[in-house]
Amino acid sequence: MEKNKNQSQTPLSPCTPSIRCIVKLGGAAVTCKNEFEMINEEILQKVSEQLRQAMIVSSEKPPGMDWSKRPGGSEICCNPEEFGDHSAMECSPFIVVHGAGSFGHFQASKSGVHKGPLNKPLVKGGFVATRISVTTLNLEIVRALAREGIPSIAISPFSCGWLTSERHISSADLSSVAKAIDSGFTPVLHGDAVLDEIQTDVYGVYDRPPAEPDAILLKEIAVADDGSWSVVKPKLQNSIELAVSAHDTTGGMKTKISEAAMIAKHGIDVYIVKAATSHSLRALNGDLRGSIPDDWLGTVVRSLR
Amino acid sequence: MEKNKNQSQTPLSPCTPSIRCIVKLGGAAVTCKNEFEMINEEILQKVSEQLRQAMIVSSEKPPGMDWSKRPGGSEICCNPEEFGDHSAMECSPFIVVHGAGSFGHFQASKSGVHKGPLNKPLVKGGFVATRISVTTLNLEIVRALAREGIPSIAISPFSCGWLTSERHISSADLSSVAKAIDSGFTPVLHGDAVLDEIQTDVYGVYDRPPAEPDAILLKEIAVADDGSWSVVKPKLQNSIELAVSAHDTTGGMKTKISEAAMIAKHGIDVYIVKAATSHSLRALNGDLRGSIPDDWLGTVVRSLR
Repeated sequence: MEKNKNQSQTPLSPCTPSIRCIVKLGGAAVTCKNEFEMINEEILQKVSEQLRQAMIVSSEKPPGMDWSKRPGGSEICCNPEEFGDHSAMECSPFIVVHGAGSFGHFQASKSGVHKGPLNKPLVKGGFVATRISVTTLNLEIVRALAREGIPSIAISPFSCGWLTSERHISSADLSSVAKAIDSGFTPVLHGDAVLDEIQTDVYGVYDRPPAEPDAILLKEIAVADDGSWSVVKPKLQNSIELAVSAHDTTGGMKTKISEAAMIAKHGIDVYIVKAATSHSLRALNGDLRGSIPDDWLGTVVRSLR
Repeated sequence: MEKNKNQSQTPLSPCTPSIRCIVKLGGAAVTCKNEFEMINEEILQKVSEQLRQAMIVSSEKPPGMDWSKRPGGSEICCNPEEFGDHSAMECSPFIVVHGAGSFGHFQASKSGVHKGPLNKPLVKGGFVATRISVTTLNLEIVRALAREGIPSIAISPFSCGWLTSERHISSADLSSVAKAIDSGFTPVLHGDAVLDEIQTDVYGVYDRPPAEPDAILLKEIAVADDGSWSVVKPKLQNSIELAVSAHDTTGGMKTKISEAAMIAKHGIDVYIVKAATSHSLRALNGDLRGSIPDDWLGTVVRSLR
């Protein structure tokens, strides 16, 4: 099965321009989680707009790059002349990764695709069905970003030859991602439907399941050169380890933090934040590069350097 | 830009099961060529059915593997119980490649994406728009095959890191394709919109533009170990070279034959045939492994061995 966010096996080559931000869009944020295969158009549009504002410094909205038909729509948006005035349109190097939300889960759970084995016909069928569903979402996200003028390019982890062994990445090739960034595109990767299954749409990473009344939002996690991490803000009384381990039985939160930490130790800040809010906007605008304001809700994972 | 069908840079590893057939679906066949981004549902369904019959030896149709919503449809087709009876369902190793038809061409021609350079905003926008369009078609083809019970998996040449230099493949990684086949899936790759632009929906490869009244259908092309090829059937009076060169000014037919020959020299027969016809069915069923019947319309490119 495929999985996202890992740079340990194949680091980006030194000639790759530094990445300004990796944005992981939670599946639960951009889809209607209780409606089968339904995009949350309003949130997705707002997310795309915020991303565009963060990525493209321009007083006006750049021309759209989705010139395809839309279901129910008769008009397509294509005006090549518009591009003439945008010769200096530069796009910051971003990577977008998204979860599955209400896409893929039904197919995955019906077939038990996460349990395998693939030579079982139902599991094989479920793998195909799950992948159809998540690539459908991926295409819609690419299109929403493109409509805002973000030069988004879908890159499917499976196509890159990413493999996992016992749910850990055993083989990953990021050269396609690096090449896309080198050429000025914004790679849009999708994640594993199964791992996302229990995610809820929350403000960030908590020390225990966020539904618990005493759950504490971890606002800042500092990562050392060796990839180890610690919570810097808020100052916690108890050891985070225990609470996070308990959380892991339902959420795999430790895995998520560890993977964010793997990125952060390369000097790339990872913000985990509720989509389409003032908090995500502040993160995208770079307002949080220094200290984290008390009224900001979210989690930043970054290097100590 | 991306491009399909080439095994010269990265041959499949010896442990890969031998491939029974590579099927290239012409874009003009599976789409309505004069209607913008319109699938030819009837042909696509028939093509998928023929492929299923050729790939899966079963007296009954296997359960569908597309469990996603369809535009306009309210029902989804998913019956996991059906899979219980299909424990022995084996699928022959096929690779499906398809062209663009009425997807991608509009976007490519509006932007001149085939001419470049990518740092020109209109070209970059056109690249994004073209890719959205061709991946939309790719997803629809994957879904049509999956509905027939073919375990189809989209593999995008761009995601694999395929690159061209002056329109020739400079870098190609087929490991994802090989891994998909190893796992029992049917990889579905898509081609370059630009190269397909002038294709018409014809019976096979001709010695000159097929619209010319004296165009001759090349039914059998034999490939030597060194990749050189010659027309075996029909016996031609004039040298094929001249006519094919003339054809190249509009169709790049020599390039297409050469690329088919690169596959054929590995021992994989390539049939170029009109989709959803009795001719394609005979090719898929393996009726043409020996001599080519006079009443068969199509082109086979195969090794002399």
